[in-house]
Amino acid sequence: MALLSVDEALARVLTGLAPLEAEQVSIADAYERVLAEDVAATLTQPPFDASAMDGYAVRAADVAVLPATLDLIGEAAAGARFSGTLGQGQAVRIFTGAPVPDGADTIAIQENAEERDGRVVVKEAASGRHIRPRGQDFEDGQVLLTRARSSGLGRCWASANHAELPVTRKPTVAILATGDEVVPPGSELGPDQIVSSVGYGLAGLGAGAWGRGRQSGIAKDDRRASSRWPTRAPAPDILVTIGGASVGERDLVANALRDEGLKLDFAKVAMRPGKPVLFGRLGAQRLLGLPGNPVSALICAQVFLVPMLHRMLGLAEAGQPEPEAVLGAALPANGDRQNYLRAMSVWSDDGTRVVRPLPSQDSSLVAAFTRADCLILRTPNAPALPQGAAVKIIPFSD
Amino acid sequence: MALLSVDEALARVLTGLAPLEAEQVSIADAYERVLAEDVAATLTQPPFDASAMDGYAVRAADVAVLPATLDLIGEAAAGARFSGTLGQGQAVRIFTGAPVPDGADTIAIQENAEERDGRVVVKEAASGRHIRPRGQDFEDGQVLLTRARSSGLGRCWASANHAELPVTRKPTVAILATGDEVVPPGSELGPDQIVSSVGYGLAGLGAGAWGRGRQSGIAKDDRRASSRWPTRAPAPDILVTIGGASVGERDLVANALRDEGLKLDFAKVAMRPGKPVLFGRLGAQRLLGLPGNPVSALICAQVFLVPMLHRMLGLAEAGQPEPEAVLGAALPANGDRQNYLRAMSVWSDDGTRVVRPLPSQDSSLVAAFTRADCLILRTPNAPALPQGAAVKIIPFSD
Repeated sequence: MALLSVDEALARVLTGLAPLEAEQVSIADAYERVLAEDVAATLTQPPFDASAMDGYAVRAADVAVLPATLDLIGEAAAGARFSGTLGQGQAVRIFTGAPVPDGADTIAIQENAEERDGRVVVKEAASGRHIRPRGQDFEDGQVLLTRARSSGLGRCWASANHAELPVTRKPTVAILATGDEVVPPGSELGPDQIVSSVGYGLAGLGAGAWGRGRQSGIAKDDRRASSRWPTRAPAPDILVTIGGASVGERDLVANALRDEGLKLDFAKVAMRPGKPVLFGRLGAQRLLGLPGNPVSALICAQVFLVPMLHRMLGLAEAGQPEPEAVLGAALPANGDRQNYLRAMSVWSDDGTRVVRPLPSQDSSLVAAFTRADCLILRTPNAPALPQGAAVKIIPFSD
Repeated sequence: MALLSVDEALARVLTGLAPLEAEQVSIADAYERVLAEDVAATLTQPPFDASAMDGYAVRAADVAVLPATLDLIGEAAAGARFSGTLGQGQAVRIFTGAPVPDGADTIAIQENAEERDGRVVVKEAASGRHIRPRGQDFEDGQVLLTRARSSGLGRCWASANHAELPVTRKPTVAILATGDEVVPPGSELGPDQIVSSVGYGLAGLGAGAWGRGRQSGIAKDDRRASSRWPTRAPAPDILVTIGGASVGERDLVANALRDEGLKLDFAKVAMRPGKPVLFGRLGAQRLLGLPGNPVSALICAQVFLVPMLHRMLGLAEAGQPEPEAVLGAALPANGDRQNYLRAMSVWSDDGTRVVRPLPSQDSSLVAAFTRADCLILRTPNAPALPQGAAVKIIPFSD
């Protein structure tokens, strides 16, 4: 199979992927989720003309000439309105958020008034001031949050009096490591054995709005092992395999899943690191086969898996900003594969993010990789760039 | 009590707060946590000199003159090393990640070699190339991640062969709404009733490394209600109350908790919005009393609660960058209270974050607040600033 460009590969990966179905969850559980529908207010806020200050509800006509001495006839607090009507020469003690009593049209704030012997002397007031009109914040039925929104929810939804919200179901991802030499973390390592680590890195990538993946163990380099692969019910939306994709790994994954009905789409992409990346379909299920090298695997996941999850959550339509940064060091011209340089950032005084590639871009260096906080994107055959040039980056989501 | 500055209030809030104790968790559960200790590798990586490419393991002396024809005596794969020793004129088929056989010191990549009849013709090779030396990535005992680290963990820890990691216990936060007029979301609203919403907004703030808080219901404006306040075992590290702090709310919280042993530290801070914010101690427990207004409450939480949580998680020592942005509109001079302007951001082509305050800064407007993505920090008596000036911002963590 010829080498595909990243753009073409990503287009194929996303073909036919749509937002998953909605489910209702309690607002206590909804704060990290993505809205499946627009959400409208179920009430008007404030529900009545309300006092914006602690003070005295008065009639503007009574405070046209100041100071004015008024009879204090009651009190209005949030949750305990004054039920009467204010007549000429009368005032009601009022607290912030309380309904403005019938007959009143102005609030005199307490700093500008003095209470004595059942009366209040208003020293300063302005007609109509310090009242929040009914519906100033929002009206019943007004859309407060639009579909595919995943932030700011906590600041709004409860106010609109929703106990539950419609959110998009989280995609399910099964993560399967492969390889005779791979053992779980914490094992006593035999000679030539290596620790299964990529799956836990993917969990970190998935922190937030989507699931963090189900660790499905390690499949041996043996076609019979496919019988335990997580392709059957409850089938995950996405099966991610790690390793077994390159020629040297003897096409383990593609061979094992062919009998299960795998329609392989591509097996190589013109990117660095990460050339051996598989993609295919098993019915409605998607297979993403990542390379066994942890650095390559996690970069491929950022490039392909994260957009898949965003599409399934409905976030793709929301339009993400494309972050840019400024180069802290010159870059040589790029080769013919799309290149993802591991880089570290510092912020300059004017708020600019300045990025510098790690000294070694060797994809076998995991310890160095953890010091990176973003990837610098280099398109195929991109020209050399001087220090200070703007570049597109992919910040790590963990 | 006189009005405290935000800086002085924050210093008092953080006095005596230290990182909580460590606990061991499985790496599958650790990815959103904060490391309590430095974590060292328990192995050397790679554990042996390993091939960096698919190809043939050879002796440099045998490929000094090219092409060279060598006898193929075996195969070395990751997890299945070649156990013999390479002699003069011999080669071993080798795959990426496999141990370099004894006797070999060079890898000829497969694109530069041709296999036929049990022999391999090497057309190109360079002495010592394509071998990753033992320990190139990291050595046994090398510190890979330092204490208080909360990102990049998934990219490293499993590789170092840890099944569990020491992380700082999450702070526990109990959230108690107060007020006769406050009812749970989804209720049929009676006249003058308002929906309890702030607690759910706090949950969103807490997304990530700390707990999201335990919703402890709604206390009525009645001192007897204090008997059900969550101050007793299992006592949360922080008790957050909502409402009942301002004069108009009749000092409900302070009065109710005085009998429980509350040592009130302050009850007002020179900030806008958010003046009525309480802080005190009940033994080891901290009380933070937020205003009832949702906008004020969530800003106070960002200013006081988030730093408390960071301190208890050990994140404060890590040093957060202080984000800056550029003003998209001129600002007037500030008054004598620290002011937190709700603002919206756009990113310009050079990567700069340009912020613009919302048209209305009225703290009763919740719907508008959800459109803000950061706060612009204005210190007391800060001068007017022109469009294009740099300002400090607090991005919303949700």
